[in-house]
Amino acid sequence: MTSHARLRKERVGVVDYDTQIKEVRCQLVDQLKVLDLQLEQKTQQLQDMTDYLRRRGEIESEYSRSLEKLAERFTLRIKRKEPSTHSVSQVWLALLAQTRQESRDHSGLGESCSNILIQPIMYCLDYTQRLAKKSKDLCTQLQDGLLKVTTELQTAWRTYHQYHSEFVSAEGKLREAEKQEEKQKQSAKKLERLIEKRQLKVQEIQLKCGKARNDYLLNLSAANSSMNKYYLHDITNLIDCADLGYHLSLGRVIKAYLARRSWAQQNLNTGLQQLQEAVDDLDQSRDRDNLLQDHYNTFSMPVRFPYQPHEEDQISEVSAECEMRCEMETRFKQIQARLKTMTEETEEAGKSMSAAKSSLLAGIGDDDLESSTGLSQAGSTENLTMKPSVARRRANLLEVENLYLVVIKEYLVGGSLVSKLQAKHDLLKVAVEKGSTSSLRIRKNQSSANFFHNQKLFSGDMLSFIKASGQQIPYVVESCIRFINLYGEDPLSEQRYDLDSVAGVLKLYFRCLENPLFPIESTSQLLQCSRKRFYKRKHLTWLRMIS
Amino acid sequence: MTSHARLRKERVGVVDYDTQIKEVRCQLVDQLKVLDLQLEQKTQQLQDMTDYLRRRGEIESEYSRSLEKLAERFTLRIKRKEPSTHSVSQVWLALLAQTRQESRDHSGLGESCSNILIQPIMYCLDYTQRLAKKSKDLCTQLQDGLLKVTTELQTAWRTYHQYHSEFVSAEGKLREAEKQEEKQKQSAKKLERLIEKRQLKVQEIQLKCGKARNDYLLNLSAANSSMNKYYLHDITNLIDCADLGYHLSLGRVIKAYLARRSWAQQNLNTGLQQLQEAVDDLDQSRDRDNLLQDHYNTFSMPVRFPYQPHEEDQISEVSAECEMRCEMETRFKQIQARLKTMTEETEEAGKSMSAAKSSLLAGIGDDDLESSTGLSQAGSTENLTMKPSVARRRANLLEVENLYLVVIKEYLVGGSLVSKLQAKHDLLKVAVEKGSTSSLRIRKNQSSANFFHNQKLFSGDMLSFIKASGQQIPYVVESCIRFINLYGEDPLSEQRYDLDSVAGVLKLYFRCLENPLFPIESTSQLLQCSRKRFYKRKHLTWLRMIS
Repeated sequence: MTSHARLRKERVGVVDYDTQIKEVRCQLVDQLKVLDLQLEQKTQQLQDMTDYLRRRGEIESEYSRSLEKLAERFTLRIKRKEPSTHSVSQVWLALLAQTRQESRDHSGLGESCSNILIQPIMYCLDYTQRLAKKSKDLCTQLQDGLLKVTTELQTAWRTYHQYHSEFVSAEGKLREAEKQEEKQKQSAKKLERLIEKRQLKVQEIQLKCGKARNDYLLNLSAANSSMNKYYLHDITNLIDCADLGYHLSLGRVIKAYLARRSWAQQNLNTGLQQLQEAVDDLDQSRDRDNLLQDHYNTFSMPVRFPYQPHEEDQISEVSAECEMRCEMETRFKQIQARLKTMTEETEEAGKSMSAAKSSLLAGIGDDDLESSTGLSQAGSTENLTMKPSVARRRANLLEVENLYLVVIKEYLVGGSLVSKLQAKHDLLKVAVEKGSTSSLRIRKNQSSANFFHNQKLFSGDMLSFIKASGQQIPYVVESCIRFINLYGEDPLSEQRYDLDSVAGVLKLYFRCLENPLFPIESTSQLLQCSRKRFYKRKHLTWLRMIS
Repeated sequence: MTSHARLRKERVGVVDYDTQIKEVRCQLVDQLKVLDLQLEQKTQQLQDMTDYLRRRGEIESEYSRSLEKLAERFTLRIKRKEPSTHSVSQVWLALLAQTRQESRDHSGLGESCSNILIQPIMYCLDYTQRLAKKSKDLCTQLQDGLLKVTTELQTAWRTYHQYHSEFVSAEGKLREAEKQEEKQKQSAKKLERLIEKRQLKVQEIQLKCGKARNDYLLNLSAANSSMNKYYLHDITNLIDCADLGYHLSLGRVIKAYLARRSWAQQNLNTGLQQLQEAVDDLDQSRDRDNLLQDHYNTFSMPVRFPYQPHEEDQISEVSAECEMRCEMETRFKQIQARLKTMTEETEEAGKSMSAAKSSLLAGIGDDDLESSTGLSQAGSTENLTMKPSVARRRANLLEVENLYLVVIKEYLVGGSLVSKLQAKHDLLKVAVEKGSTSSLRIRKNQSSANFFHNQKLFSGDMLSFIKASGQQIPYVVESCIRFINLYGEDPLSEQRYDLDSVAGVLKLYFRCLENPLFPIESTSQLLQCSRKRFYKRKHLTWLRMIS
């Protein structure tokens, strides 16, 4: 039974090595499969990348061609005309130039994708497959070596056990012989020789057992060492060998692609920058001046109509002497009255015109362009709720436009009449004054300089009036203000003074001044100033302007 | 004749005004033409801009669709597989994500061009035409006013001259009557009355002449003033009125376009940045480790083969006792010798492998990607001269690749044998040493510790040797260097010492050290260092590393 048990034990041992080696074999086969899978994946990746780049190249080239055609179409139209300095044309040219640059950049990118970038990938595919094949071959070879070592281990182990069995059997035989000797007491010569022979046999087998154990131990160590070497070292090396250059090639291709893109990005930035500059340079007034300059002959003012008297005529002034005086004075007064009305109306029209122009421009600028470009967050529903508002705004805008056209017409036509009346008025004024000088001469000498100077209070020049009259502040201004100060502050006062009339006089005085209280040049500034939001700032600006 | 000359003079005057007014009329007609031309140009510009935006919108949408399809095609393939941590896959995903983002941005741009941006331009076209028409009407009206003033001037001028003629004729008649009176001496009552009548007539006409001159002067001034007003003021206003909002609208559209583009630019920058990061993250070693991790069962090392002795066997070591000693020692020596040869060969193969790998990688990296992306300056002729070089490089590279495969095979197969031999060698060494210990025990006790320590000089560990022997520098190193210092410097010396052999011993000593003089970890650094160009820098780095 012991020998039986031992045999089973041995069997188990054999079976154990066998199982383990079988498992190792399975692993090794799987490893080769993984290597194949790796190659397949890499091939797929490289193929995908090639496909991507090739198609991308086509897309870029197509896009580039479309942009080029687009730019070309309008460039041809422009070339037929002479170059224009009009700022809108400059914007247009910048837009076309930028489009052409974009076309060139995308063409370059397309070229790059279709040709330059694909080549390294194709080459990579090439050597990746070669390396993978060689790596697999090498892997197979190493695996064969490994399996050989395990076979040697199995063999050595079997030999070791076999010799042990032989030893056990030889020892048994020796014991048997020794037992026989003990039984027979007298050692027969023959038996003695048998024992000696069996002892020699046992020794011999024992030596063989020792050698077999040595062999087994050596092979066991070698097998374990080989396993270590293969799993810890060789597999890594094999995978590295198969992967060699793969990451490098792909990385370089993508880097080259990125460099291409970043180059195009820079060009695009520059182009958009130039377009931005052209837009910032848009200038309606300069364009209008250029237009007038370009059509100089059409818009230059003709020479003045000269005075062409007959030969004997020495007089070149309007005269209000003698018989004509009365008629001239009447005419002067009529013209003066009419001029005053017309001037006021025209000024009113001018103010309305400015206001209408401002709101028209504000209305034009009040579309949804800004909000629609910040976009992506503004959903389509929001757009729908905005649309009626756009329509309403358009309708309002049309009204403002019509108002603007009405008042500009009033302003310009009225202005023409005013300029005509003014010219006549000025001539008549001089004439009437000359005519009346002689009759006044005596009275003038008698009267005080304070009250009889030839400066008009109303419709005159305040500065000249002050100089001539010697009044620091014209009496009318002083007394009006004094009256308003006295009675104007108390709204609960029972007695109602006619403040409006007094204020009216003051207003009339200021309005009629030949040179307005605030010079015309600063009117627009003052108006701008009055539109400012913050009271303090407005105040400061006013003070600065007046002082 | 005087009257004739006068008439001619008058005619000339009339003709002059006529000519001048005719010229003004021509100018006025031209002005209207210029206004028409302006409208035409603006209409053309707006139409062009609309066409451009519409077509651009189509191009962008098409481009966007192509990119989307492209990204979609590969995204679907990826989705079918599980997500991968492979760094190349990450690059690929980043590239596709960036492509999709680009598609979205161009789609937005297309949408913007086709719809949002076109609307304000259409509206601008609308009101520009209205304003231009109204401006032209107003211009015509002002021109009519101007022409009326000139007609009045002509009329007044004619009247003035007519009355003067009448005056001259009346005065002539008076002179005639006075002459008759002088001749007849006695004034007949009849004649006297005639003179009186004629005097009255002269006075009457003189008054009329004065009035006519006044009228003429007034109209002249009015005409000149109207001309001034029209040319200096009205024309500017009319052009401004016609241009109102044109620059504003166009500027706003282009600004919105630019905002759109700059938004897309930012997205593109971010996308390319992410792609760049993915490329920088490419890591072959990490990918290999991930692969091993992913296929853990396939690549994990199996358990060691255990030692399975039979039950009675108490010995688990290789023994070189008694009869086996001689055989074991012989075997040990054989294995030792073979191990040494194989180790050296494998190390050589390892070095060659590293070198081949480096040149292979350098060769793969030595394509023209960098130069081809900096491009534009590299002409096609240059490309042609480069191409044979590429082919030659490819051929060289293939040779290097083959060499690499040969030496890596040598290295791995050799390494496997070395590991097997080493395992056997180590066991045998222990066994042989144990076997010989007993016989050496006496001699060991007699000998000095300096020379009989169990540290090997060759193929040993230098540090342990120094500790055990008490030698600061191993004698072999010291004496070799002394010899080389003594005889190595003078190339003219007649006596030729065998310096090579001595240096060979020194080299052999260093090469055989168990732990190399410079630790393995810093080898790659040292190699890198030796590649540096500048001697001084190399020197410094070496010093830093060694200390």
